Amino acid sequence: MKLLECVPNVSEGRDSEKIEALATLLSSSSGVALLDYSSDPDHNRSVFTYVGDPEKVLAATMEFCAEAYGLIDMRTHTGCHPRLGAVDVVPFVPLRGIEMEEAVHVAHALGEALGAMGVPVYFYEEAALRPERCNLADCRRGEYEKLAEHLCGPEGCPDAGPAEFNPRCGATVVGARHPLIAFNVNLGTSNLAVAQAIARAVRHSSGGFRYVKALGMELKDRGLVQVSMNLVNHEQTPIHRVVESVRSEAARHGVPVVECELVGMVPLGAIEEAVRHYLQIHDFSSAKIIEARLLEAELGDR
Amino acid sequence: MKLLECVPNVSEGRDSEKIEALATLLSSSSGVALLDYSSDPDHNRSVFTYVGDPEKVLAATMEFCAEAYGLIDMRTHTGCHPRLGAVDVVPFVPLRGIEMEEAVHVAHALGEALGAMGVPVYFYEEAALRPERCNLADCRRGEYEKLAEHLCGPEGCPDAGPAEFNPRCGATVVGARHPLIAFNVNLGTSNLAVAQAIARAVRHSSGGFRYVKALGMELKDRGLVQVSMNLVNHEQTPIHRVVESVRSEAARHGVPVVECELVGMVPLGAIEEAVRHYLQIHDFSSAKIIEARLLEAELGDR
Repeated sequence: MKLLECVPNVSEGRDSEKIEALATLLSSSSGVALLDYSSDPDHNRSVFTYVGDPEKVLAATMEFCAEAYGLIDMRTHTGCHPRLGAVDVVPFVPLRGIEMEEAVHVAHALGEALGAMGVPVYFYEEAALRPERCNLADCRRGEYEKLAEHLCGPEGCPDAGPAEFNPRCGATVVGARHPLIAFNVNLGTSNLAVAQAIARAVRHSSGGFRYVKALGMELKDRGLVQVSMNLVNHEQTPIHRVVESVRSEAARHGVPVVECELVGMVPLGAIEEAVRHYLQIHDFSSAKIIEARLLEAELGDR
Repeated sequence: MKLLECVPNVSEGRDSEKIEALATLLSSSSGVALLDYSSDPDHNRSVFTYVGDPEKVLAATMEFCAEAYGLIDMRTHTGCHPRLGAVDVVPFVPLRGIEMEEAVHVAHALGEALGAMGVPVYFYEEAALRPERCNLADCRRGEYEKLAEHLCGPEGCPDAGPAEFNPRCGATVVGARHPLIAFNVNLGTSNLAVAQAIARAVRHSSGGFRYVKALGMELKDRGLVQVSMNLVNHEQTPIHRVVESVRSEAARHGVPVVECELVGMVPLGAIEEAVRHYLQIHDFSSAKIIEARLLEAELGDR
């Protein structure tokens, strides 16, 4: 079973008719399952999450983008989230049975197709063709408003599609990345310095785990503090190792871990490794889980 | 999503043509997924595992039993495993979204249907109508060879079907039970007494957890000993609590837990509780797992 996830972000979070039209397109798309979608009116932005066989996901995403370019006009778009285009970012995430290389291949194929629709395309993260475009924030610098100017210079030359400003669509950033796990640890203290010290201990930028981003934050209403993290590669830096490190650092401050929070969804693979660790079942895998076996059987039927 | 599991055991483990015919019947049955099947020639017995919507599982099981009664003749059956009939035991297991009560209802419906095919039926475990039939071993006492005699007495009166000996089919025991998790903990010592002491500490029969059966065993080839367990209700007695108790008892003997083994499959629910415990994600559920959400979406499509 091959599972590729796609999480496109589009610049429309207010007009429910348009948002529903995009959701309907995905949910009626053959061979992909729309798992979730949500909109933020302040950001004026919607995010869709769907999975399926790589070829089916690519085909559905091409249709989705064409529909979104038709529905959304960037000339009238306002919203507080940074964005470059009507279809702003399209990340592909290899979830199961496929390598990052294949997700990058799908990202490049989509980029070429969107370019052929007349939209300038930049490739980011694992799909980046230039090192300075790895980081999404760098690709989006100046946003839609500076795009016409940016496209004229050598730094703004798109990776696919025309180097010409498309006022209606803007530009689209397409990429491939590992699943991102948003994971928070709440600590039984109101002392923000403790959360900040632990965040520094575990995050990559200050000597911690390679695939962890972390910040210390206050949860004022609850009188707690939080180590708020993004785990950007759970295979190389698994959840349990980060949690055990946070627990160890918290114990040094005499502070208990009150609870952990998972924001959004995780791939089953991230859970498998925690089971292997804590229950010491060294050969544990999803083949041991009835529901996962059933999913294999169901998808195999198609 | 409702998931009922069925794990029928039939008295044929040598004739691969007959075994394949039964497997084919299940894998082509609408709305159920055959997850696994295996045969033991010494036992002369095969076990099939399939899941699906309760109504579909009931319908498939009726066809399966009718086919097995046609293929297997108990008059010529030999094998070292205790058995009463051609279709020997049919347990139904509520896996997801259904209560035990519904599994019992399905068991009783199947029993009545098999009775109408002229086969004496006994109900066991949660489906038992008499307390002395709760235990499968008690239902099967005397085996096929004593069945004709047993059916004449008041103790042998079937719960469904005729009280008459059916030489070809024997009798069938139908029941409902919780998922059974076969779980072993291997200990870094060759001292069998340690494994036996820990087995006594955790098992129900000697004051331990209510839904744990346990034995101490030697793994001679590896120079280790093992606490071999059956967890017969993971909702009431979850895996992690048993593992932590074994670890605590082992530590008292100065003995390390080398590894744990899961024999066969587990329902996702058993894993969810371990994640809630070890990662302290109090609200963790399968709704947070991408693959589980996808399975819901797939089965919802039918």
